[in-house]
Amino acid sequence: MQEKLFVIKIGGALIDDEVLLNQFLDQFAGIKEKKILVHGGGKLATTLADRLGIEQQLINGRRITDKDTLDIVTMVYAGGINKNIVTKLQQKECNAIGFSGADANLIKAKKREHAEIDFGYVGDIDQQSINEKLLSEFINLGLVPVFSAITHDEKGNLLNTNADTIASIIAQVLSVKYDVELLYCFDKNGVLEDVDNPESVMKNISEEEFFALKKEGKLHKGILPKIENALEATKNNVSKVFLIKENHLKTHIENHHAGTEICL
Amino acid sequence: MQEKLFVIKIGGALIDDEVLLNQFLDQFAGIKEKKILVHGGGKLATTLADRLGIEQQLINGRRITDKDTLDIVTMVYAGGINKNIVTKLQQKECNAIGFSGADANLIKAKKREHAEIDFGYVGDIDQQSINEKLLSEFINLGLVPVFSAITHDEKGNLLNTNADTIASIIAQVLSVKYDVELLYCFDKNGVLEDVDNPESVMKNISEEEFFALKKEGKLHKGILPKIENALEATKNNVSKVFLIKENHLKTHIENHHAGTEICL
Repeated sequence: MQEKLFVIKIGGALIDDEVLLNQFLDQFAGIKEKKILVHGGGKLATTLADRLGIEQQLINGRRITDKDTLDIVTMVYAGGINKNIVTKLQQKECNAIGFSGADANLIKAKKREHAEIDFGYVGDIDQQSINEKLLSEFINLGLVPVFSAITHDEKGNLLNTNADTIASIIAQVLSVKYDVELLYCFDKNGVLEDVDNPESVMKNISEEEFFALKKEGKLHKGILPKIENALEATKNNVSKVFLIKENHLKTHIENHHAGTEICL
Repeated sequence: MQEKLFVIKIGGALIDDEVLLNQFLDQFAGIKEKKILVHGGGKLATTLADRLGIEQQLINGRRITDKDTLDIVTMVYAGGINKNIVTKLQQKECNAIGFSGADANLIKAKKREHAEIDFGYVGDIDQQSINEKLLSEFINLGLVPVFSAITHDEKGNLLNTNADTIASIIAQVLSVKYDVELLYCFDKNGVLEDVDNPESVMKNISEEEFFALKKEGKLHKGILPKIENALEATKNNVSKVFLIKENHLKTHIENHHAGTEICL
């Protein structure tokens, strides 16, 4: 039987709220099994860009990472947020180690190529992107990797990469060696049948159900890419995939169920 | 015989100049022996603080790291500068891994206590601060550590720490296992007898000579702490300690001498 390993993704509102983040990190540090944290960015980068007068570039409604924006997200994600999470976890006696994808060449990405839009410094990744050998070495040393969503192209450029995708791909790659459970943590109790009713949590969603719900327009736009990344994980040997509320982490791990399970 | 290891410190003007930094990193990547890079901050943090309207706090002429300043140096040093150096080294096929002292608890510091001045988030370190075991594990994995000058106190606080001191202490601690050579790289040819004559490089300075020169006021103020950190290293089993010009790195390593040697 393979050893259990959790890949846990957090983002947005949680990172912006010092008290909630600290409560979450308490629960995360308490997990006895092997674990990896992947964090998004929250609003800090946008706030900093605003204060510096750097305008967000949008083309056809899609956000562009120009050089100024890349410099900001690198500082905020790989510096400010990442190192603050790491020192907070160290305080809780969790031997965290913070990474960008450039560190030890852990995640090499391809600069996004698109026929019509130049997305700028945005990187896409697949299973071949992950340096599984060194990542496993760090886990075997008893370390807890904490990934920011900054990768690189091996040509000297850092790249902005989707944190949900990083979590999914890392979970897939480590499933060769571990019994991996992937948890997307967010501020809802799970995927809701009725967005206005926080108790209307769907226990599970299959791929077929997802496409039906998507077609009927019943899912909030923001949750679609998260479920798509979750489905990719279930299709690629990740044992279990859930969308759960951030402060339900402990309950979920102890009782084996909270939120919405994404299954085949 | 112990294996050779270089601990190399860079700072200031070099980090602010993309072309010079890239030339230096070419030379650094070319070093065949085991190696560690420690970098300071340059002017980027001050520039960013200015743009954000954060005023630098000075008490009795000493710089204070308040919370806003700490947030900025964490973003700039451990994020922006560190990750850009790491991805540039990866491009040059040097398997760099970027660290703050919080990562893997590599450098735990003590918040500076001073009878009269509250320096804020400033950390002091000694040999006990370094997690020699894990640092050695990373080196044995073939990785090249790149340290920013941010440490932590194990109580959830990041701390601003002198990069010259970090380089000296790491060199001292690793001297138990390695034949360590510590190189302080800066923009002069070495310690100059006559500041206005770049060719007046002193071949070597002993502790006795240093105190004499200091007493006579013959040394530039900025270089005093660097030489003091260098002397501490020579007194604590570091085999060789030099102050050299940044772009003389390759020459120094191939010909075994450039700049000024600091000796007992």
